[in-house]
Amino acid sequence: MAETVVTAGVIIIGDEVLSGRTQDLNLSFLAKALNEIGIRVAEARVIPDSQELIVATVNTYRTSFGYVFTTGGIGPTHDDITAASIAKAFGVLLKRNPDAVRLLERQYAPADRNAARMRMADVPEGARLIENPVSGAPGFQIENVFVLPGVPRIMQAMFEGLRDRLVGGDPVLSRSVAAFTTEGSIAIPLAAIQARHDRVSIGSYPFARGGRLGTSLVLRSTDVKALDEATAEVMALVRSVGVEPFEEPAV
Amino acid sequence: MAETVVTAGVIIIGDEVLSGRTQDLNLSFLAKALNEIGIRVAEARVIPDSQELIVATVNTYRTSFGYVFTTGGIGPTHDDITAASIAKAFGVLLKRNPDAVRLLERQYAPADRNAARMRMADVPEGARLIENPVSGAPGFQIENVFVLPGVPRIMQAMFEGLRDRLVGGDPVLSRSVAAFTTEGSIAIPLAAIQARHDRVSIGSYPFARGGRLGTSLVLRSTDVKALDEATAEVMALVRSVGVEPFEEPAV
Repeated sequence: MAETVVTAGVIIIGDEVLSGRTQDLNLSFLAKALNEIGIRVAEARVIPDSQELIVATVNTYRTSFGYVFTTGGIGPTHDDITAASIAKAFGVLLKRNPDAVRLLERQYAPADRNAARMRMADVPEGARLIENPVSGAPGFQIENVFVLPGVPRIMQAMFEGLRDRLVGGDPVLSRSVAAFTTEGSIAIPLAAIQARHDRVSIGSYPFARGGRLGTSLVLRSTDVKALDEATAEVMALVRSVGVEPFEEPAV
Repeated sequence: MAETVVTAGVIIIGDEVLSGRTQDLNLSFLAKALNEIGIRVAEARVIPDSQELIVATVNTYRTSFGYVFTTGGIGPTHDDITAASIAKAFGVLLKRNPDAVRLLERQYAPADRNAARMRMADVPEGARLIENPVSGAPGFQIENVFVLPGVPRIMQAMFEGLRDRLVGGDPVLSRSVAAFTTEGSIAIPLAAIQARHDRVSIGSYPFARGGRLGTSLVLRSTDVKALDEATAEVMALVRSVGVEPFEEPAV
């Protein structure tokens, strides 16, 4: 049976990530959250606050992947140019959204409703809002593109509210087998196991814990039977070099 | 006087970053380290262990940016396909490098020199090695592309050894002014300051500390006079809304 694969592209927008000022945490959150519902992040890009690059990247991604998620650039300041750039990418107008205005009015007292804050109610025509339970200003969805803020805590809360709009494919199941052996000690027979199991993808990741070197072998597949068979072979391989494998929580 | 801008692109290679298993730490390290020597990371991509994507991304980046840095995929296992992919991108052969063999022989006892480990001595023809003071297996440079491992501690140690090969442009200086005020309270006059200072780039980043909301305003320029003038205006703006700004260490 052919598997149904649903992909996503993630676009991290922000000069502060490219300067090293801010450590991005949004890609790993989105990757895990999407994986749980059968959507695989196929690629991610980190781009500066540049309209030209946002337009080009969104237009490449929205035709390449099932879903696109952007983070960053939807606040009230001059460097927040994501909404206008997305409107340009879709060739639609940026318009003040009455529902977004109501959400901002719920957040801000009349004296605080200045032009900069109310600009956060401007979204591309045809977009559907994504409510923000933390700080009021909404994100939005236009076609398969979901536009979220950069602050991780707010982005994560907003993701919960849009989860129902996503339709995943076959979920990717995974197993992780760890052992205190080095990659080079098992690489050759591991490649043979990979070659025998084309429905399973096997990754090998070295680690150091308490001064001891080890390797995590992560197996992924949409086919539980293939996954269990390959995992058993990997466990046997590790035992064959004289160490006892242990299963880790797989991500 | 025109400023000299030297750019870099960073390519993070690894299924484990796109699955959310591994939190990437290499982009922020490289961004900061390169910034110190006058090289700006202009864009970054996170791509899977796919030869086709590595070839395409390296070929796009090496003609778009002054330097390219890749991390990940240079170990001994079947999923380590970076070196072969880079050779393909440059249209050269992957060949066993005698100096790399010597480095591996220094690391591994004769009994441990198996085919998988010795494969780490295969680099694209014409490449120059990057020594690995932590775990032996070298990275390499071919033209403007620097190929590094994914494990942050090892990557960082290897970066120290290649720093001398990089020539930066005018260094980007930065100042960071923080205050316990929200972005929306200062957004309009801040945009006016940005509009008056086209040689300075001003970013605005909200934060929460000890339950209090604040904003960091980060100013960047290669021109120290322009930077100081804009910073003074930003400090005055913050004071004008009744809060006392404080300078933060800028990154």
